[in-house]
Amino acid sequence: MEKGIFITAEGPEGAGKTTIMNMLAESLESEGYNIKLTREPGGIEIAEQIRSVILDKSNTKMDSKTEALLYAAARRQHLVEKVIPALEDGYIVLCDRFVDSSLAYQGYARGLGVDEVLSINEFAIEKLMPALTLYFDIEPEKGLERINIHKGREVNRLDLEDLAFHEKVREGYLQLQKRYPQRIKNVNAAKSVNEVFKQAQELLKPLIISKK
Amino acid sequence: MEKGIFITAEGPEGAGKTTIMNMLAESLESEGYNIKLTREPGGIEIAEQIRSVILDKSNTKMDSKTEALLYAAARRQHLVEKVIPALEDGYIVLCDRFVDSSLAYQGYARGLGVDEVLSINEFAIEKLMPALTLYFDIEPEKGLERINIHKGREVNRLDLEDLAFHEKVREGYLQLQKRYPQRIKNVNAAKSVNEVFKQAQELLKPLIISKK
Repeated sequence: MEKGIFITAEGPEGAGKTTIMNMLAESLESEGYNIKLTREPGGIEIAEQIRSVILDKSNTKMDSKTEALLYAAARRQHLVEKVIPALEDGYIVLCDRFVDSSLAYQGYARGLGVDEVLSINEFAIEKLMPALTLYFDIEPEKGLERINIHKGREVNRLDLEDLAFHEKVREGYLQLQKRYPQRIKNVNAAKSVNEVFKQAQELLKPLIISKK
Repeated sequence: MEKGIFITAEGPEGAGKTTIMNMLAESLESEGYNIKLTREPGGIEIAEQIRSVILDKSNTKMDSKTEALLYAAARRQHLVEKVIPALEDGYIVLCDRFVDSSLAYQGYARGLGVDEVLSINEFAIEKLMPALTLYFDIEPEKGLERINIHKGREVNRLDLEDLAFHEKVREGYLQLQKRYPQRIKNVNAAKSVNEVFKQAQELLKPLIISKK
């Protein structure tokens, strides 16, 4: 089906993946590649509506399984309206967070079960797994420290989780990496921005070489 | 876990199930049973928010799988906040539409696959299937005729589907009945209101006899 390449970025809060994905998009574009940089809900109206239900701070009664189903629903719509059309047009799609976020956060850290959360996500994405997933690994304390530097941003319900939760998220990601060693590649996100960027570039190279 | 009894009503548009469920609730209450009559989203704030995304007429680009995931999410929240607490309090819960609606409408009629839609619903409801499901069977033409009598009501996106779709929904329900013959019981909904009511009463009797 797709002519493009689907690449995702994963990792805990404050790992710097958004910064690096922006840098990757810019440098690849300057080299002549067709790049679509996105993250769910990505301006897709239906996915945005779903996301605002998830992030509504007054929805304190939201059950974890409801939340997981809503993430899968927003993912589906973003995929159908944005990712798949771009792949069909031959773009390299860089997506900031995807299925693995649900597996690590809901499946593992919230204890819903990785396989259970995978099953609803398989319904949502069918066979469209990324060709490559960059996992930006960092110790949770360090990641949260970095977030506090960016104080300006709005705090949402998910930011209020405690450090123990973020430790679990990391464990979840590390387990996923063992499960999908061909797809998920580790980036040491504790290094400087330029070093992290170089690691990410090296991991992308073999995949995109033929796509200019 | 539950001390109450969970009973659902299913069937195409215009089969009269809402009328009959109201009559059942009223007559059982007058006999001294504790009844909770509900239907998703049932006044549960989060489920209502999700439902309004589904029914928004401007969301014409909504993918069928997104829709199925949203129904499952609203179902989960309604179950957790309303159905389960009522069952724990010993109520007979009468729920107008539940999992079988998703299986018949999305799984069968929209072609997503009954087992696929069942899998996301199993995630949503875990093991909480109804003890009894009344299936109000009627020919689609007859059901739609009845709807047109109630002209006052607002037409939503789902009402705009054509007759062939409703034929498929019915086929879906009939197949589900074959699959779950112990749980799903047929009510001939083409009869008069009083006759349909009597059929439903008879089907409930053996289940609720000990619950007064």
